[in-house]
Amino acid sequence: MTGGVPLFRRLALLGIGLIGSSVARVARERGDIAAEIVVNARTQKTLDRVVQLGFADRVEIDPARAVDGADCVMLAAPVGAFADLASRIAPHLMAGAILTDVGSTKQSVIRDVGPLVPAGVHFVPAHPVAGTEYSGPDAGFTTLFQGRWTLLTPPPGTDPDAVEKVAELWRRCGSMIEIMEPAHHDRVLAIVSHLPHLIAFTICGTADDLEAQSKQEVLNFAASGFRDFTRIAASDPVMWRDIFLNNREALLEMLARFTEDAQAMARAVRWGDAGYIEDMVQRGRKIRRSLIELKQA
Amino acid sequence: MTGGVPLFRRLALLGIGLIGSSVARVARERGDIAAEIVVNARTQKTLDRVVQLGFADRVEIDPARAVDGADCVMLAAPVGAFADLASRIAPHLMAGAILTDVGSTKQSVIRDVGPLVPAGVHFVPAHPVAGTEYSGPDAGFTTLFQGRWTLLTPPPGTDPDAVEKVAELWRRCGSMIEIMEPAHHDRVLAIVSHLPHLIAFTICGTADDLEAQSKQEVLNFAASGFRDFTRIAASDPVMWRDIFLNNREALLEMLARFTEDAQAMARAVRWGDAGYIEDMVQRGRKIRRSLIELKQA
Repeated sequence: MTGGVPLFRRLALLGIGLIGSSVARVARERGDIAAEIVVNARTQKTLDRVVQLGFADRVEIDPARAVDGADCVMLAAPVGAFADLASRIAPHLMAGAILTDVGSTKQSVIRDVGPLVPAGVHFVPAHPVAGTEYSGPDAGFTTLFQGRWTLLTPPPGTDPDAVEKVAELWRRCGSMIEIMEPAHHDRVLAIVSHLPHLIAFTICGTADDLEAQSKQEVLNFAASGFRDFTRIAASDPVMWRDIFLNNREALLEMLARFTEDAQAMARAVRWGDAGYIEDMVQRGRKIRRSLIELKQA
Repeated sequence: MTGGVPLFRRLALLGIGLIGSSVARVARERGDIAAEIVVNARTQKTLDRVVQLGFADRVEIDPARAVDGADCVMLAAPVGAFADLASRIAPHLMAGAILTDVGSTKQSVIRDVGPLVPAGVHFVPAHPVAGTEYSGPDAGFTTLFQGRWTLLTPPPGTDPDAVEKVAELWRRCGSMIEIMEPAHHDRVLAIVSHLPHLIAFTICGTADDLEAQSKQEVLNFAASGFRDFTRIAASDPVMWRDIFLNNREALLEMLARFTEDAQAMARAVRWGDAGYIEDMVQRGRKIRRSLIELKQA
């Protein structure tokens, strides 16, 4: 516990996977994020596990009860569940409360949740850009957000004090903060995260479709390249299904750009255009070096 | 040094990057692979560094001198350099010597090197399936091959004793051994390694082409997904250019399969086919789990 006055009296976490349980663990460890942590999940089994893990003051199977009296409510379920969750909690949100989320698609969250937010409740969409391939309440850890960015996409007219409180919550989790247009957020995330995941899932399927003999060999000889793709592809299926469906336009655009570029590479391979191939590989190295300089590698 | 009689009196390594310098380090540490290690590289600068690193008994800028009196010669340069190297060393290979390689494409090696091998020299193509994104003589380390596979693709009629000696060399490096048809090798490697690298290089290019503002953001927010692709994409450009050009048919076939599958995913995203997307993600997880069970993750 680092002491200091808690930002919130009661933080309600709706969903307690990798992100939610990491926030809970940081809040528990620091003590200056929320005086009380209430956790909601879809199943009693998950809530029982949360009780065992000990980072919640209270667990609630009913989201309406979980948000009761909470001055900060954080949606941390897969984005496809947000519309339903929001409609169930909306009548129970406290006047003056902040409603925020951690979803990877921001236009869809504003579309699905925005209209349901009662007057007097401050809606501050957010996205901590951090993750691993693990999911569930056991997967979280306190350093997940350190040195990573959290992107806030508040709709026009959002109370600046509410935006600042959400920013401060993420700063206390170790994040750097940036305010962004929701549409721009969705385009950037499509290329840095959503498309790489779609590609990783797809190539695992391509390999899985090869004849039975090759399949065993794919697994045996996956030492380089493929292995990294399967790590990405091990992520939570429902979360990713929801992200793809909720960032459709940007994802399809980035996939179209990538496919054009892959076809250009195919053409260079077919016609033996060594210079083109070498240039493309060099660009990959350059981007990698820039990442290392930015400490995002 | 583990003692024991050395497999070879003199091992000549032609090329001293990640793979070659790892073999040299293992041979130096164990002492039972070769009594003497001779290293050849294209530049004096590399050879000077090899002398500093201390894992060679002798360095030679002329490949013909490097193979003089060697009972094992290992081609460890990019595969595109093999034809030239082979033609320069062929007249100088000792009768009874073993000529082997570590190239990632095996049909091309047999095509390029096979016809140049003098009578009385045993040609045993091999491919240790191991690697990192680093290259050069500093990149090697003694545990690179431990628990990994080395694939041998000896042409029909190759002396079994020569094949066994190459297999034993790799076993002493920590590898498991499998004999494989060269064409089958090239297909399997196309899906587990060559295509993932082509995709990683390509998506880095796609990101690099986005407008200047997004580009910086790509780098800032690369925390998940993209970051793993850039790691793969950081590999040696000349080595990968040569691999792509020398495994053209298998690589183009696997890219075509992958592209069909990616288009099917695009269609599922466009039409909101949640079941299809979830199935595809589940398959990725299944493959990842199999890899973990096989200890190749």
